[in-house]
Amino acid sequence: MEHLDTSGPLPRVVIVGGGFAGLEVAKTLRKAPVDVLLIDKHNYHTFQPLLYQVASGGIEAESIAFPIRRIFSRQKNFMFRMAEVLRVEPEENLVHTEIGPIRYDYLVIATGADTNFFGNEQIKHYSMPMKSIPEALNLRSLILQNLEAALVEPDPERKKALMTFVVVGGGPTGVELSGALAELRNKVLVKEYPELDASEMRVFLVEGKPRVLGTFTEQASAKAAHFLRKMGVDVSNGVHVQSYDGYELRIDDGRCIRTRNVLWSAGVMGAAPPGIESGAVVRGNRLQTDEFFRVKGLDNVFAIGDVSVVVTEANPEGYPGVAQVAIQQGMQLARNLVRLLKQEPLKPFRYFNKGSLATIGRNKAVADLGFIRFQGFFAWLVWMFVHLMSLVGARNRLIVFINWAGSYFTFNSITRLIIRRYDRGSVPKPAAPKEEVKAAQQV
Amino acid sequence: MEHLDTSGPLPRVVIVGGGFAGLEVAKTLRKAPVDVLLIDKHNYHTFQPLLYQVASGGIEAESIAFPIRRIFSRQKNFMFRMAEVLRVEPEENLVHTEIGPIRYDYLVIATGADTNFFGNEQIKHYSMPMKSIPEALNLRSLILQNLEAALVEPDPERKKALMTFVVVGGGPTGVELSGALAELRNKVLVKEYPELDASEMRVFLVEGKPRVLGTFTEQASAKAAHFLRKMGVDVSNGVHVQSYDGYELRIDDGRCIRTRNVLWSAGVMGAAPPGIESGAVVRGNRLQTDEFFRVKGLDNVFAIGDVSVVVTEANPEGYPGVAQVAIQQGMQLARNLVRLLKQEPLKPFRYFNKGSLATIGRNKAVADLGFIRFQGFFAWLVWMFVHLMSLVGARNRLIVFINWAGSYFTFNSITRLIIRRYDRGSVPKPAAPKEEVKAAQQV
Repeated sequence: MEHLDTSGPLPRVVIVGGGFAGLEVAKTLRKAPVDVLLIDKHNYHTFQPLLYQVASGGIEAESIAFPIRRIFSRQKNFMFRMAEVLRVEPEENLVHTEIGPIRYDYLVIATGADTNFFGNEQIKHYSMPMKSIPEALNLRSLILQNLEAALVEPDPERKKALMTFVVVGGGPTGVELSGALAELRNKVLVKEYPELDASEMRVFLVEGKPRVLGTFTEQASAKAAHFLRKMGVDVSNGVHVQSYDGYELRIDDGRCIRTRNVLWSAGVMGAAPPGIESGAVVRGNRLQTDEFFRVKGLDNVFAIGDVSVVVTEANPEGYPGVAQVAIQQGMQLARNLVRLLKQEPLKPFRYFNKGSLATIGRNKAVADLGFIRFQGFFAWLVWMFVHLMSLVGARNRLIVFINWAGSYFTFNSITRLIIRRYDRGSVPKPAAPKEEVKAAQQV
Repeated sequence: MEHLDTSGPLPRVVIVGGGFAGLEVAKTLRKAPVDVLLIDKHNYHTFQPLLYQVASGGIEAESIAFPIRRIFSRQKNFMFRMAEVLRVEPEENLVHTEIGPIRYDYLVIATGADTNFFGNEQIKHYSMPMKSIPEALNLRSLILQNLEAALVEPDPERKKALMTFVVVGGGPTGVELSGALAELRNKVLVKEYPELDASEMRVFLVEGKPRVLGTFTEQASAKAAHFLRKMGVDVSNGVHVQSYDGYELRIDDGRCIRTRNVLWSAGVMGAAPPGIESGAVVRGNRLQTDEFFRVKGLDNVFAIGDVSVVVTEANPEGYPGVAQVAIQQGMQLARNLVRLLKQEPLKPFRYFNKGSLATIGRNKAVADLGFIRFQGFFAWLVWMFVHLMSLVGARNRLIVFINWAGSYFTFNSITRLIIRRYDRGSVPKPAAPKEEVKAAQQV
């Protein structure tokens, strides 16, 4: 693709993925003697930690998305291409994309993670993931559509199923989402759906591990579960989902929950692009790298963030899949690339853990910050501050702040819009019992 | 549908459509001894005058949409149903909807207008309308996708077609949209698409009547055309589009413009639901009413706003299809319904024209306000103020204001997101020349 080669004689660093990791590499390289080309299938960066608020109608999608071209509009050595990556061809130094092949001197794979349904096609079809803005908007539409449908459903059992929400997976996303749903019931349903009985809306959180927020301290986990239960969330630990056919969710403790809303936040897998030799692809479809982020077996291909796992003797399990790791890795990799060009020795990665935060609802959060742990109102203030400050752009910060402040004082978040109706659409459906199919048509 | 009849013995006013007209009826009836049931296919009200800013990426969709349940959360005699209306059955006092039949004592049809393609299926398929939020978001996606595609298009003719925008129809929407596109070129393209030559982006405005803004004064029209030309819009009057096959737009002055972006704002037609006797459906699929908004031949069915045309001897052409008319009609109808219940005489409609405003771009607008006409910066301030004040909700006003203020000082509007890629999809395509189909695949 000759038209892409307008870059002159500087070495070209191609970054695949505009998440926290990819952005940080590009930014840190702003004065380096390289040409940076960033590829992403979206033309915006998604601030994933707040996706659950888009899903629950707390903030606009636009407030947590930032056009990549705008972020880099003043960076001279930066180019952007909106394209889906098809595969990598390391032997030829090429990335094949839907807009043609793109040549690289150094390749940074920062493609992040996808939802992991652990191979269960039925669950994949019927449950709702939440890893991108379109997915979060679909989820918002489904929640609101099912409340509208519940209003006109004469059969009590079907109505109950429409008003039953099961969040699978008790990591930060699952905890925050089930908290947001409980607040929707406790604060919004009463006002805006007076014909519905709010007590009929049920929120379940189902987690396979013995406690929610498994990566947090036990104290934080226990407090989060306590907060959730106080808000009326039915929290189960150490149980696993066996099947979901769109109507009935079966759990391995013998329960069967009738629900039309299953929100899947139970696992992620690396979104490694095809073309990397299988020896480098490890557990969870992630790319194994050394402590300099070099993908196993390759010299000029690097992987960082959720798609990668840094395997060293001291740290055989890699680092957690959180924004902090991605950002620190991005910065470190960019600096190492500069060292590489100067033929200086590379520096290995050392992770500095600033701590963990999760919010459960209004005035309720948990914080594990190094030696300090605290929960409740102050943790919630810290959570708000950290997330506001992490948003790209002063305007986004201001708008999210207005939304939060407005919701805080009125409980009237404004974005409960079904912009596009969600429709499971033409994906082939696994067989469902006949009677249930009829029920679906009536709703 | 027995479950809808929870309303008790009060007469039931069913309103179809949550636009300016329908909302005003429902609001004005808040203390009337009636049950109000509003039906809309969306769960939100759309502030249509600012749709063009959603399309051009100036503001978020959420800022000009307001959840209907929220607007009426304190109105005791109000119910909402999100549903598509299938047909009206006046003999039985029923509205048939996708969620079942709904009985009424009084029916208000306020379904507004749809885009009118004047029966041309090819133009309908290939051009972009802009009457709803999903349509405005599709248009935004198409504009941004085609700029991305232009970046990697090696063929100069095809590249030019991707960067050519033709707005058909020079009413307020067409004028405002072509102005916004010209600003996109003049202010944004340079910064964010440095690889594209901004001078290659062309904006055309094509209007069938002898002047743009035909409903405004000649002075305002002339000034609007002058502003547009100064901004680099190619304005043509008195010409008509003959055909558009997705690649070539043919105009009856002999020109053929190669373009991948045709934005259709050339006409509207009433969105009258089926089931009304054909004698009452007049020109442009609108419902003919008397000066009390009674649909011709029916006693308890009323029509207001863009779907209606009030035909009286003094005013055989009806009123213009603008928000002011819809709002005034809604209020008048609600008051007449109360009079009807009290068996008082009805009052005929008298339209009070507050004037017309249209904006062309930064610092540029035209205002026809009764005896005063002015254009330029002051008109633009008035336009901003009137539109801000008309938005429902303090929070929406504040957010739109921040967006506008931010854009004004930086020209960096933040919402240039392709949230969902626009795809003409599976609609059957009219035949296109073979070579062109190939071109489409390459883009």
